[in-house]
Amino acid sequence: MSERLLVIGADAAGMSAAHQALRTARARGHALEIVAVEAGEHTSYSACGIPYLMAGDVADADDLLARSAEQHRAAGIDLRMRHEAVALDLDARTCETRDHEGGRTVSIGFDQVMIATGAAPVVPDWAAGHPRVHAVKTLDDAATWSRLLADRPRTAVVAGGGYIGVEAAEAFARRGVRTTLVTRGEELMSATLEPGTAAAARAGLEKLGVEVITGSEISGVSTGSGEEVRAVCAGGQEYPGEVIALGLGVTPRVDLARQAGLPLGGSLARGALVPDHRQQVADGVWAAGDCVAVRDRLLDDYWYVPLGTHANKGGRVAGTNIGGGDASFPGSVGTAITRAGQVEVARTGLMPRWATERLGLEIATRRLDSTTSSGYMPGAAAMSVWVMADVATGRLLGAQISGGAGAGKRIDTLATALFAGMTAREVAYLDLSYAPPFSPTWDPVQIACRSLAERIG
Amino acid sequence: MSERLLVIGADAAGMSAAHQALRTARARGHALEIVAVEAGEHTSYSACGIPYLMAGDVADADDLLARSAEQHRAAGIDLRMRHEAVALDLDARTCETRDHEGGRTVSIGFDQVMIATGAAPVVPDWAAGHPRVHAVKTLDDAATWSRLLADRPRTAVVAGGGYIGVEAAEAFARRGVRTTLVTRGEELMSATLEPGTAAAARAGLEKLGVEVITGSEISGVSTGSGEEVRAVCAGGQEYPGEVIALGLGVTPRVDLARQAGLPLGGSLARGALVPDHRQQVADGVWAAGDCVAVRDRLLDDYWYVPLGTHANKGGRVAGTNIGGGDASFPGSVGTAITRAGQVEVARTGLMPRWATERLGLEIATRRLDSTTSSGYMPGAAAMSVWVMADVATGRLLGAQISGGAGAGKRIDTLATALFAGMTAREVAYLDLSYAPPFSPTWDPVQIACRSLAERIG
Repeated sequence: MSERLLVIGADAAGMSAAHQALRTARARGHALEIVAVEAGEHTSYSACGIPYLMAGDVADADDLLARSAEQHRAAGIDLRMRHEAVALDLDARTCETRDHEGGRTVSIGFDQVMIATGAAPVVPDWAAGHPRVHAVKTLDDAATWSRLLADRPRTAVVAGGGYIGVEAAEAFARRGVRTTLVTRGEELMSATLEPGTAAAARAGLEKLGVEVITGSEISGVSTGSGEEVRAVCAGGQEYPGEVIALGLGVTPRVDLARQAGLPLGGSLARGALVPDHRQQVADGVWAAGDCVAVRDRLLDDYWYVPLGTHANKGGRVAGTNIGGGDASFPGSVGTAITRAGQVEVARTGLMPRWATERLGLEIATRRLDSTTSSGYMPGAAAMSVWVMADVATGRLLGAQISGGAGAGKRIDTLATALFAGMTAREVAYLDLSYAPPFSPTWDPVQIACRSLAERIG
Repeated sequence: MSERLLVIGADAAGMSAAHQALRTARARGHALEIVAVEAGEHTSYSACGIPYLMAGDVADADDLLARSAEQHRAAGIDLRMRHEAVALDLDARTCETRDHEGGRTVSIGFDQVMIATGAAPVVPDWAAGHPRVHAVKTLDDAATWSRLLADRPRTAVVAGGGYIGVEAAEAFARRGVRTTLVTRGEELMSATLEPGTAAAARAGLEKLGVEVITGSEISGVSTGSGEEVRAVCAGGQEYPGEVIALGLGVTPRVDLARQAGLPLGGSLARGALVPDHRQQVADGVWAAGDCVAVRDRLLDDYWYVPLGTHANKGGRVAGTNIGGGDASFPGSVGTAITRAGQVEVARTGLMPRWATERLGLEIATRRLDSTTSSGYMPGAAAMSVWVMADVATGRLLGAQISGGAGAGKRIDTLATALFAGMTAREVAYLDLSYAPPFSPTWDPVQIACRSLAERIG
């Protein structure tokens, strides 16, 4: 008799799990039936691409679709769009599902269930009910932004100075919209970036003409007639904005999981599901994507890092295990990258306060300025590398990079070194690639680590 | 009493050692006197930059100078230019040195000696004595090429299809010279590149208009009147070339070391000096740079890889130890990178035959085509990743990359993984950076390793 997997949520994590479960089960000769329900109208798209759609880099929202509903069905998955899971009974192994199309509720039985319900953008009270104040999260949001930007607003405000905020501000500015970004942080992305790295991101946005207001929080909007918005109020000031983008973060969608009695994580995990290394949250209950926390290898603890990379990996690991294989998610080291105009910004590992307060380590840090290629080459761009290590062992704990084209992706070398538990000295003597168009003789990440290792002694 | 270090050869390895020895000794309160002798007229320059000087990317040969003789002297090093070490007596601790400027021979006593005599370009019989047939190695060569190219030759031949050959051919072609590259290899760089990677490099050169002749060896030149060269003869064909660049590799300069009775390496080491992990070749005798072989971490054997990265690292390690510190050179994993027109080509690790024949391993390989950034982004360029792993353990053994801007430097992630001894599966699940302008959700290096890991099972 065939086993049935129910997948709740048909985006990156859910559909990675579904396809991988099918592949794994088939390779083992197991029969596996898959039903997937998706509350929305879209499946398997690149949410990370939406700011670039807003900027005009990507012509059509359809370009962001990785796989259509038809393609999922052709692979043998019974995908039901506009079906919202409203109640999950893990004892009875049934899920009540509201069919928004057909206007009826159906109960779907299952043997195993994959929870991939994702996250919802934070929408503060002042933003509710204004059609020109909108999040940057889903393909529906993308369609809304295409419409709002087609009206050629002259001014825009971005609420929030995290990755999405920075990318939305870049998008507006590159479309010639006068843009103000307002963040309560002391700097852009100050939760995860060192001041020097954050300042580089800010300089990148400012060069595009974005006004960056830090240490301030939006408290309300000034409205005109009808749907019109004119400005936001923040810290006693008004900043003009005919459209307002919300980049205030997301919270895991875990109502269904909570009602089903599944345990949820604490504050570092932001109340998300906390799966084990096989992505299992209870017997035959799996989860991945923006509704789960990921284990940080350096903190050895779960925190909430809703990124597409983790969603894809977690989904694939879950699918392998669901299909009868054996896979582990090895955890994250906190790697992230973005672009603020011409400035590439990337990070991996811990922030100083995490290392000192959470792990009780004595740390040493070093910032080093170098160039992306040999200094005498045309196109050599300035880049800055910040590194942090544990004084007692010399072990690398964190790294950040800012700079011109080619700077950011070097973070992967340091993320790999962190993953492997290397010391700063070991990184300094890695056999990295060098030729004048690509790097100084010692790659900037090596110079920074060498200097830090010498400081530690 | 002050100890004296004699440094023979004042380029990357020698002067890295000198400065690092001074720093280390001073930090320890040791007195160290340094005498450095250099046979040529230049010190501490980027030999790797010469093809880019030939191409016109770099305006002036002086731009390639890292530090001038005056700067070395200002740091407290007694640097003697145009002084050639002609006989080394390790028992007496003296070195006979020919002062080409003053026309006299002086004997320099020392306590420790650093041998950094570098390498000499291979010049075949057919090339000798033709002023328009020239190597691409030293700053003097660079000056010769500036002069030869100022005559605006219409045609050029490059002998050799290694890194220098490819870079010289690119330089000629970008200056509008009709260029033919002749290599006896089956493909460009076929000693170290997989056929697919090599073909990408060839396509890059051909797109610049370079004619690439493989499997053929130059046997002679057709000359005109005076210094004129008209063509080369290879495999019964003539290829027009008013100037001929030699990129046939280099051999370690070890005459002095051999005469001093120091042991030299075997065929894999190409007869170079074989220092221990502290860069020592005998008691108080140190060596680094193009005159030494480096230990390959994967083969656990010494081979000859004359690269600026190893010269700098080896010099620094030697200097630390000379100065009374304790440093180790951790070895190489065979990383290299270059550019052939718009095509970036990079490698790390073993070739299949090295893994099978030298290490007796059963290997699996995988080539995967992807894009440098998310496929829907403007500027996403094609890139191809080749990976190889040990079937028994899954351990990554080698990797190669070719593709557009941003492809090549990703080799560093794989070089770091090789250095750490990671499996292909571990690389697949690394926490690498992702945002649409930088990468697909899974970085191409991860997709390749994931696919290889699945193939191995």
